[in-house]
Amino acid sequence: MEPVSAAVSAVLPAGGSGERLGGATPKQFCGLQGRPLVSYAVRAMERVSWISDIIVVVSPENIETMKSIIEKYGHKRVTVVKGGITRHRSIFNGLKVFAENQSSNRLLQKPEVVIIHDAVRPFVEEDILLKVVTAAKEHGAAGAIRPLVSTVIASGEDGCLDHSLERARYRASEMPQAFLFDVIYEAYQQCTDHDLDYGTECLHLALKYCKTNAKLVEGTADLWKVTYKRDLYAAESIIKDNLSQQICIITDLKEAVAQVGFLLHESLKSQVKVEAISISLRKNDSHLQNIFSGECYNFLCINDKEYATEEIQQLVDMLEKSNIPLLYPVILILVHLSISENISFSIGLEELTKIKKFAREVKKKNILVYGLLIQCKDHFSLQETVNSAAALTMALIKDRNPELIGQLLVA
Amino acid sequence: MEPVSAAVSAVLPAGGSGERLGGATPKQFCGLQGRPLVSYAVRAMERVSWISDIIVVVSPENIETMKSIIEKYGHKRVTVVKGGITRHRSIFNGLKVFAENQSSNRLLQKPEVVIIHDAVRPFVEEDILLKVVTAAKEHGAAGAIRPLVSTVIASGEDGCLDHSLERARYRASEMPQAFLFDVIYEAYQQCTDHDLDYGTECLHLALKYCKTNAKLVEGTADLWKVTYKRDLYAAESIIKDNLSQQICIITDLKEAVAQVGFLLHESLKSQVKVEAISISLRKNDSHLQNIFSGECYNFLCINDKEYATEEIQQLVDMLEKSNIPLLYPVILILVHLSISENISFSIGLEELTKIKKFAREVKKKNILVYGLLIQCKDHFSLQETVNSAAALTMALIKDRNPELIGQLLVA
Repeated sequence: MEPVSAAVSAVLPAGGSGERLGGATPKQFCGLQGRPLVSYAVRAMERVSWISDIIVVVSPENIETMKSIIEKYGHKRVTVVKGGITRHRSIFNGLKVFAENQSSNRLLQKPEVVIIHDAVRPFVEEDILLKVVTAAKEHGAAGAIRPLVSTVIASGEDGCLDHSLERARYRASEMPQAFLFDVIYEAYQQCTDHDLDYGTECLHLALKYCKTNAKLVEGTADLWKVTYKRDLYAAESIIKDNLSQQICIITDLKEAVAQVGFLLHESLKSQVKVEAISISLRKNDSHLQNIFSGECYNFLCINDKEYATEEIQQLVDMLEKSNIPLLYPVILILVHLSISENISFSIGLEELTKIKKFAREVKKKNILVYGLLIQCKDHFSLQETVNSAAALTMALIKDRNPELIGQLLVA
Repeated sequence: MEPVSAAVSAVLPAGGSGERLGGATPKQFCGLQGRPLVSYAVRAMERVSWISDIIVVVSPENIETMKSIIEKYGHKRVTVVKGGITRHRSIFNGLKVFAENQSSNRLLQKPEVVIIHDAVRPFVEEDILLKVVTAAKEHGAAGAIRPLVSTVIASGEDGCLDHSLERARYRASEMPQAFLFDVIYEAYQQCTDHDLDYGTECLHLALKYCKTNAKLVEGTADLWKVTYKRDLYAAESIIKDNLSQQICIITDLKEAVAQVGFLLHESLKSQVKVEAISISLRKNDSHLQNIFSGECYNFLCINDKEYATEEIQQLVDMLEKSNIPLLYPVILILVHLSISENISFSIGLEELTKIKKFAREVKKKNILVYGLLIQCKDHFSLQETVNSAAALTMALIKDRNPELIGQLLVA
């Protein structure tokens, strides 16, 4: 990606009350996989190295909540600013941090270009940020747009149709938007109280007060704004989908274990990207460290010993240290091989209680542990059992259900 | 609800290719809980007694698919019609069934009012249908509207912002819409090829060709159109949510079983509507028949015997006969009480295999069976175990995961 040749910062208005969502919690603080929506938007900015400061504007009663979110999830380069009573007033407050000395916030370095993005749009890629910033540098302002999904109509005073707009000629204005800082700050300084109280569109202010026609940039479908409860459902499913794209299979060096690991790998790889490692679990294994520095949130550990042994505990410790479970719950499936050919093999309740207890402990570290039993009766039925194990594995990593931790599933 | 004093039929255009969704299957045929989206829209019309005929318009290559969907899910009063190459041409074809003798379809009774609704809007309540029909009878045309979520903008030829619309003055035009049949049919007969090929809005045709200003009716948020993959995710979650509102607990008359049933009832009722029945499972039990004629899709059956006994088979047979599993998968949780005070209680693999085999059989009837073990060690820990059982029960009925059938969970 070509570098950005401008100082860039971002303002995230996060002051909405979320009335359209229903429920008491404003949507930006609703949890997705346990983490508030606003943290996703912050993370999306934070991971872009060329964004210097991230200003999150929240209503006064949520300042402490926001600060604790930043601390809990280790967000960097974030300044929390007190919002106003409307969206425009909040954004204006956010911009002032770069231009006016204020008692509550230190004056930050004024950027050449400022990105404005909603706290309730969790999926924004570096690519579109780069596009709007580049266009803003050239045109003074730029914003992401999307085709209209429904026809837009104007109603008359009698509540009847006045006219409908030709859908192809119009676009939905989405976020992110970007502006030369001086353009948008000037526009906010010039605009009327009516604009500040009833307006919704930053591009409109830049046009009206600075004669700046924003460049419109076609955005992707995932830029949509979480508005209704169904949008939270959709966002949750998208996140689960993203998290279940890759799995790491860890086996020790024993033959039977390695064989099942190989068969599971074969069965899973048509559905998901699989990393397989054969090691004895030792601290500081460099291959495992590589996996841990990647974006893998699912681990399947095959062994033929009892659960919750020292090796498993080591794996959990390594996961915890890796910071992987900080942003998302990590799935850890403990596969137990029963090599006994005895059909009357049985599992004691004591054993089951032990896994559950272990899983409850480890959940505090945001690691979700499940047990999976594979019985290797004979070579004839092994393939079928492995396919069943693969299906259960996919179900567990797609669902990421915290209520089912510590259960022992049978393939 | 006040009665409708007009003959009403409905046309559902279902000919779209679903390009915005990605993937090969047009979205109206994508499965939600195993059933195609279009079947939900058909069902929403079919359950309204005052809608006479339901015309589903599909592209020529999907006619057989559509007919098999109607047969499989037992839809009534539905006629399948061959669509045109655009949305307007498809709707026009649907309307012709009421007005022109055609070789492929018998001429249906012309309605006074015709509803037009999208196949990809699965959640439409009788209330809004009644409102648009009543308004159409008075005004000639009516349509559901929603507030705009994003600001709408017009772009200039240079790809820059030309102007933005004041969001409060405009609305998104949604479905359902309703028309006096003669108005909309006249409009389609009058309109140009350009309208038929590029237009998207029926209300616009009624205005342009019949001078009929449609009455705009505020709709609910759930009228939205399934357009992108995220909308399928959202719809799936909403359906699961709707299906997990009620559970029926079935216990036999033994004391220990009834006691656990009572405790489970108490623990569940803060989260879900609970119907509890104490019976010995007999065929034709009238109380159970009442439950079966309701809208309950979740059953929890407590007994202290082995799994897959005659009683369970009877319950499955009754569920199957009730037609409840026709439209949605039914969850059946078999709770096994272990009254033994022996901590070394164990479960044989043979036993586990038996439950899995039974569950696979019953899944063919669209019934998802899970096992749940509750050990009643002592009264002190029983409450905790019951709470854990309630949490697992809620997880199972909310997830409705077909991959986990036949597993035995331990509370």
